[in-house]
Amino acid sequence: MADYVNGVLSGDRMILSRAITLVESNSPAHFETASRVVKEILRRAGASTRVGITGVPGAGKSTFIDALGCYLCERGHKIAVLAVDPSSSVTKGSILGDKTRMENLSRHKNAFIRPSPSSGTLGGVTRKSRETMLLCEAAGYDVILVETVGVGQSETTVRSMVDIFMLMVITGAGDELQGIKKGVMELADAVIVNKADGGNIMKAAATKTEYDRILHYLRPATEGWETKAYACSALTGDGIADAWAVVERFIENVKASGVFAERRRKQELSWVYAMVEDYLKQKFYKDERVVNERPLMEDRILSGDLSATEAALEFIKLFESGLMIKC
Amino acid sequence: MADYVNGVLSGDRMILSRAITLVESNSPAHFETASRVVKEILRRAGASTRVGITGVPGAGKSTFIDALGCYLCERGHKIAVLAVDPSSSVTKGSILGDKTRMENLSRHKNAFIRPSPSSGTLGGVTRKSRETMLLCEAAGYDVILVETVGVGQSETTVRSMVDIFMLMVITGAGDELQGIKKGVMELADAVIVNKADGGNIMKAAATKTEYDRILHYLRPATEGWETKAYACSALTGDGIADAWAVVERFIENVKASGVFAERRRKQELSWVYAMVEDYLKQKFYKDERVVNERPLMEDRILSGDLSATEAALEFIKLFESGLMIKC
Repeated sequence: MADYVNGVLSGDRMILSRAITLVESNSPAHFETASRVVKEILRRAGASTRVGITGVPGAGKSTFIDALGCYLCERGHKIAVLAVDPSSSVTKGSILGDKTRMENLSRHKNAFIRPSPSSGTLGGVTRKSRETMLLCEAAGYDVILVETVGVGQSETTVRSMVDIFMLMVITGAGDELQGIKKGVMELADAVIVNKADGGNIMKAAATKTEYDRILHYLRPATEGWETKAYACSALTGDGIADAWAVVERFIENVKASGVFAERRRKQELSWVYAMVEDYLKQKFYKDERVVNERPLMEDRILSGDLSATEAALEFIKLFESGLMIKC
Repeated sequence: MADYVNGVLSGDRMILSRAITLVESNSPAHFETASRVVKEILRRAGASTRVGITGVPGAGKSTFIDALGCYLCERGHKIAVLAVDPSSSVTKGSILGDKTRMENLSRHKNAFIRPSPSSGTLGGVTRKSRETMLLCEAAGYDVILVETVGVGQSETTVRSMVDIFMLMVITGAGDELQGIKKGVMELADAVIVNKADGGNIMKAAATKTEYDRILHYLRPATEGWETKAYACSALTGDGIADAWAVVERFIENVKASGVFAERRRKQELSWVYAMVEDYLKQKFYKDERVVNERPLMEDRILSGDLSATEAALEFIKLFESGLMIKC
């Protein structure tokens, strides 16, 4: 275990990778060791800027991360890119090689790219991603780019582990906003209109204005910070430095106001309780009796044979009687 | 118990009121009887149009409900108006008399108005409100207007129990949209711009256009239905009939598409599981050991003495060891 800890703290990429593999393992034996490693490096984690990046399909998230990551690496930052895909499962395997998606960045010595872990026990993908982030921080990575992948809850998951959340969109007349998942715009601290290049520059400017207009009507995601839209081109590099300047201004702002510390604190505690609640729910939904009785109970509820309250009480009784027997 | 059931089914207002009081009681003895009454009337419930109404402060929700309710009563409908305030607690008492807020409607023989219940056991306000709705339906009320009250989660609570959800707003240049709680606009099937009267008519039309514009960019709350804004005046009655026509068109649309039945089905099942999950969580958070250890544990988490995962495991162990002893 000490090897892992020392290796991670010294920034050894190979050992960092292996420590992450340990954290990602679904074997109970690994879980034990992983927990101890994470605990040991905890005091050395936390010093990075955690940036969440989501986007509509086709927005060019990977090329943006590639461009932004390279820009930061060249300025002396150490960049870790993590992907979070809560829908990934062991059988599905990890998503197609992230390294091929970020060709330039993957060759940079200051960059560390890791695809989404698969789901599993306690907290699943979210726990693994969070602990991976801590390991990367302890290894000296000072900017963590966390990318949402796949469908479902990845946006809220990522939002709950980062300091600033960016939404990538594409240019167009405005109708493309329909592609944004419900509620995601209200999580964003910045909207990045990508592909502002070539014949698309005017369109990108119009799209930016359109988003600013709509954002103006939404409650800001972060207290004391006005979410705005910014245009850039991951292809030409135009606006990439500006996008990073937005992150820096944001961090400065929230650190000064105390929102940064408060958000980190809340994230940490709510993460603990989320794991506990997840465990309690899983225990119920995976309970053998519950699993067996569920189809019949649902039929009875929908046919009016059982009121919702009665059904809830029956489920609870069923579940708790099982617990008794196990004791 | 048979008296309650027969009284409710015959539409006796006095007995309906008493049955609701039973459902709202926090006494375990009443809970038992109430559950049986609800079960008995279940097959006669469900035949109403369930309309949820929320609004920004000052939008004139009460006057709108007063006007819409009277309009419907005069057309032969029987209207029940319920309020849902998940923040209400026994000690706070119910909100100020709803009857004084809906003066005309409260005098109508076809109307039944009930303030929000206080919170309490299993499912709290939500369970009570849902069961009250079922009792009103069994008593022959064919339109249930459910009003959100107070802060917090009342919008999502009400959304989860109605067929159509309306958002009331006031006229203005557009900036007033800031008063709308996060995510609420995306729950709305119709936005009603109230106070379109006197010197305000032009402003209301402009506000309606502004909302239509924004709604266009949001994902519709209900599949196959485009959420739009409509102007009305609860004061003069202009647009009240149109607002109801929107409800009727909506219901026709979702019944034809199957969305109506599917939503009711999902609402029923998810309500059962929400109660179960609520119970499981409460059991954890109210557990004596958990309550006692929590402050110290949180200190240890925030100081880095305990990783989030370790903390979650400790909480679970603590909680489950308590369960063992009780067995």
